[in-house]
Amino acid sequence: MSYGNVSLAIERLKPIFGERLSLSAAVREHHGKDTTFHPIKAPDAVAFPNTVTEVQEAMQVCADLRIPVIPYGTGTSCEGHIAALHGGLCIDTSGLRDIRAIRVNDMDATVEAGVTRKELNSHLHHTGLQFPIDPGADASIGGMVSTRASGTNAVRYGTMREQVLSLEVVLPDGSLVQTGTRARKSAAGYDLTHLFVGSEGTLGIVTAVTLRLHALPEHTVAATCSFPSLDSAIGTVIQTIQAGVPIGRVELLDDLQVDAVNRYSKINLDVAPTLIFEFHGSRGAVNDQVALVKDIAEANSGHEFRWAERPEDRSRLWQARHDIWWANIALRPGSQSLPTDVCVPISELAVNIQAAKEDINQANLIAPICGHVGDGNFHACFIVNPEDEDEMRRVEDVNQRMIDRALACGGTCTGEHGIGYGKIDFLRQETGNAFSLHQSIKSAFDPNLIMNPGKIVGMHA
Amino acid sequence: MSYGNVSLAIERLKPIFGERLSLSAAVREHHGKDTTFHPIKAPDAVAFPNTVTEVQEAMQVCADLRIPVIPYGTGTSCEGHIAALHGGLCIDTSGLRDIRAIRVNDMDATVEAGVTRKELNSHLHHTGLQFPIDPGADASIGGMVSTRASGTNAVRYGTMREQVLSLEVVLPDGSLVQTGTRARKSAAGYDLTHLFVGSEGTLGIVTAVTLRLHALPEHTVAATCSFPSLDSAIGTVIQTIQAGVPIGRVELLDDLQVDAVNRYSKINLDVAPTLIFEFHGSRGAVNDQVALVKDIAEANSGHEFRWAERPEDRSRLWQARHDIWWANIALRPGSQSLPTDVCVPISELAVNIQAAKEDINQANLIAPICGHVGDGNFHACFIVNPEDEDEMRRVEDVNQRMIDRALACGGTCTGEHGIGYGKIDFLRQETGNAFSLHQSIKSAFDPNLIMNPGKIVGMHA
Repeated sequence: MSYGNVSLAIERLKPIFGERLSLSAAVREHHGKDTTFHPIKAPDAVAFPNTVTEVQEAMQVCADLRIPVIPYGTGTSCEGHIAALHGGLCIDTSGLRDIRAIRVNDMDATVEAGVTRKELNSHLHHTGLQFPIDPGADASIGGMVSTRASGTNAVRYGTMREQVLSLEVVLPDGSLVQTGTRARKSAAGYDLTHLFVGSEGTLGIVTAVTLRLHALPEHTVAATCSFPSLDSAIGTVIQTIQAGVPIGRVELLDDLQVDAVNRYSKINLDVAPTLIFEFHGSRGAVNDQVALVKDIAEANSGHEFRWAERPEDRSRLWQARHDIWWANIALRPGSQSLPTDVCVPISELAVNIQAAKEDINQANLIAPICGHVGDGNFHACFIVNPEDEDEMRRVEDVNQRMIDRALACGGTCTGEHGIGYGKIDFLRQETGNAFSLHQSIKSAFDPNLIMNPGKIVGMHA
Repeated sequence: MSYGNVSLAIERLKPIFGERLSLSAAVREHHGKDTTFHPIKAPDAVAFPNTVTEVQEAMQVCADLRIPVIPYGTGTSCEGHIAALHGGLCIDTSGLRDIRAIRVNDMDATVEAGVTRKELNSHLHHTGLQFPIDPGADASIGGMVSTRASGTNAVRYGTMREQVLSLEVVLPDGSLVQTGTRARKSAAGYDLTHLFVGSEGTLGIVTAVTLRLHALPEHTVAATCSFPSLDSAIGTVIQTIQAGVPIGRVELLDDLQVDAVNRYSKINLDVAPTLIFEFHGSRGAVNDQVALVKDIAEANSGHEFRWAERPEDRSRLWQARHDIWWANIALRPGSQSLPTDVCVPISELAVNIQAAKEDINQANLIAPICGHVGDGNFHACFIVNPEDEDEMRRVEDVNQRMIDRALACGGTCTGEHGIGYGKIDFLRQETGNAFSLHQSIKSAFDPNLIMNPGKIVGMHA
């Protein structure tokens, strides 16, 4: 089996898309590179549909001729998800930008795939509702579905998995299906919706998403707290979660990470292991949470809480947290980023982070550590020169050891970044004999292997 | 294609199970009947494995000879899930009762499929943790996974879908797989775990389940409140949810349902549309919730809250709620139960319940209405004589109209009972052209169609 004649496909796509089919090298290369060290793998062409019907038409052409199709959101994924490993057509979903419905009374919304999370939240202004999932980048909702994204708020609101009620999907044969309903719960057949969440464009293209929305908390306060050691900071997190505190966010930054953030964002946190807390709820609920967490932090030798109570101070703090990516790259001009992403049971968090930090130091590498630690998820963000083979070998070795430890204690090789083509071997290691079930799903939904080939299970024609 | 020689299978199973393979009519019939009006469809034999290895051995025999396999938990499902429509071997999982691990620090547990929810909660005594999902019956955890069960606590804690971290499953070829890890979140490949949750034994047999546990709330209070009309009760629920109150439970009983409960459970609620509330959280959080919900109820002309603050009063109240099934059957001696189960967006709840009640009255049927209304899920519990064809036709007609209305407003044909073989046509109606994806999943995982044939998608050899 092999793929078909892409020139022929391009000829058939031209009348559909006109100027919105690009063959320029710059556009193709932009669509073949994510934000990490993964090299450019440009598609043969990029289509910019404005309607779901155009997505279906493009898919039908590619199905007929067996041409690879790579769905593209904002290009902010981390494991080469959008690399055109086998060439083909990239479908950029940014033109699918209709906010079809915001149903305040039902606390849900239906938006097209190209709408970004910030755009959605702008539209929710004055409704009293929010879409809380926040992976840092202003990713598209379709992309966030496809990578099962999460981020700082997941400890309270869950990941994309918990937000998606139903999806509209163009299947590899060009047909359009709805995977579920707007009911808050359902026992109606196999969970198609959650099979597509996290499927990274390998089973179809998500064109619209029906999402839960959440009430904006009545009261929100944020605070930072520095600690004498990583252990004492992580101990505070573990005890907070174990006490059942419904905390809004709890983020860890190690000393190197704090230093990078201070320099880049011009703030002045103490250069020490630091937690950023956010508390959400009614006033009574927040007061109870704050009192309990302050006690826990104090018992773990934490310093004074530094409060960010005004909205603008909170925004500044979280913007600094979200700019970590750029702050880290700025540590070493000209470098690129290789972020690790294990997630472990919370009782194993301190051991895993400490061991990673020792490995990083011993291998003489630069890798600030941060984490959505309430979920047991942390990242060592390696700042690398991809041309330096010896350095890349040491990075791979440290990453492999992080994953070995995570899997050994019941964790996963990726908490939120996904598999792309960068983590296929790790997925194989994690799933063992269940890997063949992943392959069966791929074959059942995409028998000609045209959807984002070479990703998740690595299958291609 | 057809199924193989079951006598031969029984001969091969005898040396594995000895006395624990039953051919007796009484045992077979008991395993071929759920708690509803669905008629007995007895399997050819029932095996009682005590170990996962025995499940694998039984499955290998049935795979070799192409014999239907029907997994059995406690038989408390509602849509003929356990009916042996094509004969074969029932595998009763009640002997898989090992509590493999309770990890208090990680707030998770791994239990074998036959452990019931009450047994698990007994084991959690003194840990400060709970497993909150509560479908009423003391169902097995494996069965609850298989039907994607929920119940009164889902409004706060989600359904089984949100509780399951990973499953151990015996596949149709007898091999054993683990579908995930203990990490709280993961982006590692297709969501196998949630594909098996709700798959009703049609893709494999769940043998062990890793579950999230939740902190017991610091403070819990329950109250009942009666209302002058269904509309005012439901309006109270809708406004409570829309206000973002993280309520523990909120259950609706209509006047007929209250009357049935009063008689059966010897309690004395006012015979009127009634809400049962439960509030969970820290003291400050509960006080805020109660104050807000009392205001909302009062604005909707609710009567005084009647409190059940002592644990024994709360237990009595919830026991009465859970005995609804028996209370309803007692309304008409010798009758059987046909429970409907639509779930709709919350803004549509009042219209849907009112229309159902009018249909029930016009068709001269007996059907108390109750519901997990915080999720938009409600049941009309038809009390029927399955021998009375005219009555059954009227019931079917009213149920079809309930489902038509639910689907038209964005709801589902089943919030928590599942499809079994009773709701296949409704699933087809709900899913439209996505029904073929459900069929693809079944074919991919169970190509010989031996797992619980005739269920969900209706496929059989």
